[in-house]
Formats: sequence, C-alpha cells, structure tokens
Amino acid sequence: MPCAYPRARMTDLEALIAGICPVVLRGDDAAGGPSALDALASDKSGWSGLPDLGARPRNTAEAAAVLRLANSVPFVVVPRGAGTGRVGGAVPERGGVVLDLMDMNRILEIDVREMIARVQPGVRLGHLQQECEAVGLFFPPDPASAKDCSVGGAVATCAGGLRGAKYGTMKHYVLGLEVVLPSGEVIRTGARTRKCVTGYDLTSLFVGSEGTLGVVTEITLRLIPKPDAAATLVAWYDDEAAAARGVAAALEVRAVPRALEFVDRRALSAVAAHFGRPEWKRHALLLVECDGTAASVAGELETIRRALESAGGGHVEIAAGPSDAETLWAARRGVSPAVTAMWPHRFSEDVCVPRRNFLEMLHDLHGIAAAHGLEALGFGHAGDGNIHASVLMQRGDDEERARAHRAVADVFRRALALGGTLSAEHGISISKREFLPLELTAPNIAAQVAIKRALDPNGILNPGKIFPGT
Amino acid sequence: MPCAYPRARMTDLEALIAGICPVVLRGDDAAGGPSALDALASDKSGWSGLPDLGARPRNTAEAAAVLRLANSVPFVVVPRGAGTGRVGGAVPERGGVVLDLMDMNRILEIDVREMIARVQPGVRLGHLQQECEAVGLFFPPDPASAKDCSVGGAVATCAGGLRGAKYGTMKHYVLGLEVVLPSGEVIRTGARTRKCVTGYDLTSLFVGSEGTLGVVTEITLRLIPKPDAAATLVAWYDDEAAAARGVAAALEVRAVPRALEFVDRRALSAVAAHFGRPEWKRHALLLVECDGTAASVAGELETIRRALESAGGGHVEIAAGPSDAETLWAARRGVSPAVTAMWPHRFSEDVCVPRRNFLEMLHDLHGIAAAHGLEALGFGHAGDGNIHASVLMQRGDDEERARAHRAVADVFRRALALGGTLSAEHGISISKREFLPLELTAPNIAAQVAIKRALDPNGILNPGKIFPGT
Repeated sequence: MPCAYPRARMTDLEALIAGICPVVLRGDDAAGGPSALDALASDKSGWSGLPDLGARPRNTAEAAAVLRLANSVPFVVVPRGAGTGRVGGAVPERGGVVLDLMDMNRILEIDVREMIARVQPGVRLGHLQQECEAVGLFFPPDPASAKDCSVGGAVATCAGGLRGAKYGTMKHYVLGLEVVLPSGEVIRTGARTRKCVTGYDLTSLFVGSEGTLGVVTEITLRLIPKPDAAATLVAWYDDEAAAARGVAAALEVRAVPRALEFVDRRALSAVAAHFGRPEWKRHALLLVECDGTAASVAGELETIRRALESAGGGHVEIAAGPSDAETLWAARRGVSPAVTAMWPHRFSEDVCVPRRNFLEMLHDLHGIAAAHGLEALGFGHAGDGNIHASVLMQRGDDEERARAHRAVADVFRRALALGGTLSAEHGISISKREFLPLELTAPNIAAQVAIKRALDPNGILNPGKIFPGT
Repeated sequence: MPCAYPRARMTDLEALIAGICPVVLRGDDAAGGPSALDALASDKSGWSGLPDLGARPRNTAEAAAVLRLANSVPFVVVPRGAGTGRVGGAVPERGGVVLDLMDMNRILEIDVREMIARVQPGVRLGHLQQECEAVGLFFPPDPASAKDCSVGGAVATCAGGLRGAKYGTMKHYVLGLEVVLPSGEVIRTGARTRKCVTGYDLTSLFVGSEGTLGVVTEITLRLIPKPDAAATLVAWYDDEAAAARGVAAALEVRAVPRALEFVDRRALSAVAAHFGRPEWKRHALLLVECDGTAASVAGELETIRRALESAGGGHVEIAAGPSDAETLWAARRGVSPAVTAMWPHRFSEDVCVPRRNFLEMLHDLHGIAAAHGLEALGFGHAGDGNIHASVLMQRGDDEERARAHRAVADVFRRALALGGTLSAEHGISISKREFLPLELTAPNIAAQVAIKRALDPNGILNPGKIFPGT
C-alpha cells in the first residue's frame, strides 16, 4: 500500500505540514538536480523508496503535530535518524513523509552525580561517548557505526556492538524516553532513577521497535564510571583447528572481557589487500580487550594470555599502551570498510548463536554458501555469539542474488537450529521480515501485531516494517 | 466485578478444571476447618480476597488449559507465586481461580559455559542464587524476600533489592520467557543469546507486568561470574548532619558499591530493641559492600573509608572477613522483621528518587508524617535512591488509617516532585493503583491499557490490577 495521499494533492500536503513543522524537504523536479528527497530514500540496507515529502522537526511539538496530521489526512510517517541502519527501518518503501530527526541534536544534560545523560535523538552516539568520557563517565554500547549513527537510531534498533558480552546493549542503558505516540500524543516513559516499576515497561517496548510504535524525541540514559584502565591483546592463527582452540580457551576464562572479537580468513584477506598490509593475511584473528582497575585488567589479560598460549598455535601480541592498542585494533576495525569495498554485492546478516556454537556457525556459513555456489565471510563478537555473516556475490545480478537469498535463508535456519536468533543488533524491518516466521510462532507474531495495532490503529507509523501485515 | 461464574455452579467449574489441571484446591465448608483457599487469599500487602477455586498446574500445558477455559466460561484467573508480594498482585480481589505455580519448581538447567539458568517459576530465588554460586556463577538481583520469593514472582514484579545500583534489577537478567498468553496460547520470547532484536522486546514487557499480561511458565536468566571477593564496611552516625555528609561522601566516590544501605534512627531503635542490641541505637547506619577482584575490592573500600572519614562524624568499622561481614549486616537485615514486629500497623512504600535527593526525601517523609499526626521511619538503598518509607500507626483503626493514607499520598507527591517514582521494586497492583495518575499522564495510562486489552480482550487475567478500569 503506497502513501494514502494522492500525489496530485502533494502541494496541499506540503502547505499543511509547513504550517506545523516549517522545515520541509521536497522533490525539486523543476531544477532537475539532485532532490532533497534522495537523501531520505535509503539507509545502509540496500533498500530504498522515495518519500513524498520530508519534514525536519526542531522540537517535540513539531514532531507531534506531524503525527496528528498524519492520522487525519491520512499519510504514512517514517521516522529517520542518521540513516546508518542495515535493515531498511528508515526507508519509506510506501512513500509518505519522512520525519528526519537530525535537527534535534542537543545533549540536554550530563548529570555527573546521578550518572545520567539526557539527549535528543539526533545526537551522534560517538559524540555522546566522547562527552561522557570527558567528565569521567562511560556509555558502553558501541555499535560499529557509533561515530555516525544517532542515539535515536540506536534506541530504535536496540543497538549492541563490541561490548555487549560484558556491558549489554542499548536496552540496558535507557532509563526513560519521551515518545510521540502514533496518535500524536506525547508521553514520558520510565524515570530518572535506576529503579522504576510503575506500570508496564513501555521504555523497553519502544527500544528496538524500529520506529513502528512511536517517535522517540528525548532519551534518558544511564551511565557508568569510566573504567580506570583497559588492555588489549590479539592472537593471530594460521589454521582453523588452532583458532578454534583459541576461541574455546578464551571463552573458558571466567573473566568477561569487554571485547572478544573474531575475524575469519576471508575477511582478513580483504582487510590486508584493502589497506596494503600483507602481514594481516592470516587464517584468523582473535582480539581481546579487558577493562576495569589497572590491577584487575592486568590480571585478566594475563589469565587470557596464558589460556591462549596453553591452547597453542597462536601468535599473541599484547598492547603496551593505548596507542599500541589502536594499532592492534586496526585490522579489526578495517574489516567493514575493506569488505564493503571489495564486495559491493553481498548480503550482510547479524545472526547470534550460543557462544559455544560460534565457530560451528562460522564453519557452517561457509558450507551453506558453497552449497549455493557462493563464498562467504564472517567476523564478529565471539563473546556474545554475534556473527556478522556475509554471503558474497561477484556480479550481483538477479540470478546470483536469488541464490544468495536462498543461502541467507539457510544461514538463518542454521542459526536457529543452533539455538540462536535472526538478529543480534540490526533488527528486522524490511530485510528480514519474510524470515520472521522461522523464529517466531504465529501466536507470538499475532501478539506483537496486536500491540502495534493497539498503539497505531490507523497504521500511519512506519507500517509494514517487521510485520508485513501492518 | 466479582468472578463472572455464579457460585451456585462452582461444582461444575471444579469438575471442568479438574479435567484439565488435576490438582484443584477448594473451600472445605463441610469440615469447618481452615480452607485450602485461605492460603491463596492474601500476600504480604494486607489485601485479601477469597478465590472461588485454586488450581496448581504441574506443567505449562495444564496452565494453558486453565486459561483457555477461563476465556470460554468465562472466569477470572489470578496467577500466584510464593505470595511474598507487597502490593496485592496475587490477591484474588474479584474471586475467580488462583493459578498457584509453586508446583512448577524445577531448576531445568544451569549452563556454566553459556552462563545461563533456565528455571520454572516456582523456584525460590534464594535457592537459585545458591545453586549458581555453587558452580562459580552469580545471580545478582537480591530482593529482601529472596529466601522465600519465587523467581516467577520476581519476574512479575521486576524485583530489585540491595544490589540494584551496581547490577540492575530482574529486567537486566531475563533473556527469555515461556509465557501462557491470556488466550491460553503459549509463546516463547527472547532467546538464549545475550543479544536478540528479533521483533519487539516482549520479554521486558512481561517482566514487571504483575501477572496481568501472561502467566510465566519458564524463565531463561543471564548469569555472571561470581565475584572473586567482597568486602563490607559500616559507619554509625550520632547526628543527622554527619549522616548526611557521610551519604554524600559515599555517593561522590566513583566506584559503584554493590550495596550502599542506609537505616534511619527510628528503624535502628526498633532493631536494637527487637534483638536486644542497645549498641545499635544510633542516629543512622550506613553500610557499604564492594565486590570484584581482591585488589579492586580492597582499593574501592579504602577509597570509601577515606571519604567517610574525611566527611567526619561517623564511627567506621570494616569487616575482617565474610563472617565478620555477616555481623555487620545483622543490624541492616534485622530492620524488616523488627519493624514488622514493633508496628503491625503501617503503610510500607518503596519510592525511589534521584540519589542526590535521597536524604531530602527521608527528611521530608518525617515532616509529612508529623503533619498528619503520625510517625515514620525509612531505610533502603542509598545507591539507587530507593527508600523503604513506612508511615506508622499506633492502633490501625479506621480514623488513623485514613490519616496514614493521606500521609502516604503526600509522600508519593513529594517523591515525584523530587524527580522520583511511585515504586522502585514492589509494583502497583492494588495498593498503589489509585496513585498511578500522580505519575503517569492519561495518554500514557491509555497506551498501557490498550496493550492490556490487545493481549487480554476478555479481561480474564488478573483484571483491575495496576489499571482499575481493566
């Protein structure tokens, strides 16, 4: 179902919206140049769809007015942050109005004594992290897109990242929200306190709801003291058996590192070629980072080093200090840009399996791709079983895409058979919605759809995302 | 609205239920002795209501069958755990069938490598803690009722306890649930993995929903490694100003203790009298417990000791070891039994305020009680601003209860004015539902009621709790 508002009357709609939310973005057909709407058409998923209009609220009242209008006209509203999402959550596939929240970009407060930050949704997550660290505090969630992504988008997807195994994900840090409901009514959820059980936990319901249940206009976040120290170690492996022993040994250690990252052979080849670093062309890389007090960090890293050396077969390097640690991180951080440059056509998924099945899932990923005549690569967060699994295409034509699509379906089935989940941190939105019934039963989906309909009876807010029938 | 099923046909209903859930509890009018239903009539809230029947499912299928039947007859179902709740969540105020889950009491697995426990709802929380610690793992949530309360009840209330400031509450540890929906359909939410963003976070919606959205029949919990070491310190104060300086100093320290407990003068008087320990009769007690590695714990406790001694006016004792720590904990742990014995008539509330307002809230509690001609006492978790605030009655007659009720309302208003919340960990259910509009706006309540109605269209599951109109 496209936008319910006929395009012939778009000028009327533009005037209506401009009256309540003055910063309006529209297509500029006359000039023939790039339209302001092009920038609102896609995210990092590969999906796209041109909206009819864009609206950029400067405050909550303007956002609420657009949603109220959307119910009465009616038209579809698609909320948007920085556009770094991987599953199409911000893509206006049915047209309508994109509500671009990036002008609401202020850090409203960082309360050092309460260890709380209150921010607008358009604040960049990396900027928030820096501002917290500048006053001795720490915001742990750290998705790969942290520098670019918005806090609002991280809330909408329940972003995770590198530090999930030790510190959890966005849902563990959101204390409260200001939300514009699909009706246009504004509510506040949660509290400024660490504990609050007054009514249902609406906060957690909105976190990860991918812009389908409400538009988040303010976020209250829990912070923690910045760890005194961190220390980093990498282990390079030249064969699969040794890498497997290394991962198993690292997972057996009782300490929980804040990062326990794995990069496979093909991903390492890409990063070595892309950055001209032939010494990175190994079978596997394991990166461990611990944080805490200076003493506890040294103890934990030493325990892990001994475990890895007992398991054998790896070449272990320990960072001498922060700048040395950055050098060790370079290969891991380079994976995403290198892989993107080398394989413009790929399906990149984010399955999660129990930690003990991490390597089995990686191994099976390659087998599944091969069965469809394709190659694959994997890297990710061994500490929480979260694998970034790419099925690679050479040409990206229709036939190859169809094969890759079938391979991805098999990857999902395998992850679920291993006790895992379709998505660790990207979400479902457009990309994975057809696979939802692989993981969730019909009564489960029906319960979620019932909640969606209860809060958005007119189906104006990001309809069709996650649940095709909405 | 009482149970929709006329009592004259109760024998028919008993037969129907016995056919699907054989362990049925019924009133035994003929014998004239205590009825099996009396034990299902109340919890620790002071509220009570006799059910028409009790049903004790031995498995999920039996529980689901009772809920399916409830929709078709119809009758009201009230789920029940150990009955340690403080706000009437398990009280069948409208009659109906109490679904007693205490026969579903098995620890299904403790997976050491994945650091996961999977349990039935009737497992005692303290028993689970012990079993986890026996294999080197740790389950942090620690409500005062841990020894007696059920894990299912802790899920239903999102229980918190002493360690909330450092470790969070139940919601931070529940990875997934098996839930019987009000329709009688059984769904599984969440995953066995640390990360899962497949669909809405139904898990968090059920946690803290006080038995109104579904019956939890299995719980998958995240565990953490058992800390290597813990250390404890108490500081005794003889005047209010010194105690205030001590709390402020403890909160200024960057380290987050796993417990930071405060007990006021009147609570200390009660515990000193009740246990015959006159040396506990001081103005205030501050108890600090840190955990981590041996080195980090020693460092943190020393930092806190220095901060308290710099602030001055307190007598600081440090535990020499675990048994000494238990001695120091005795006064704090004795508060609840002593206060209960000394003041059988009291309203005990669990407001939460920002940490910086903890002492102001405690101070105002006494002022509010005095304004209504009553006394009060307070103790609780200074680390997360969670105050157990009791308004004390001498006789508990109607007139005094009415005054105490008005005082409680003023305590809630003050907590909210200080940026806090009505309930940190007990919940709302019956006791606080009339106060809900003090904290939540009409559109917020309407959104929650819409969710309740979407999942329980026939209103058969614990109706009227939290939201009077349901």
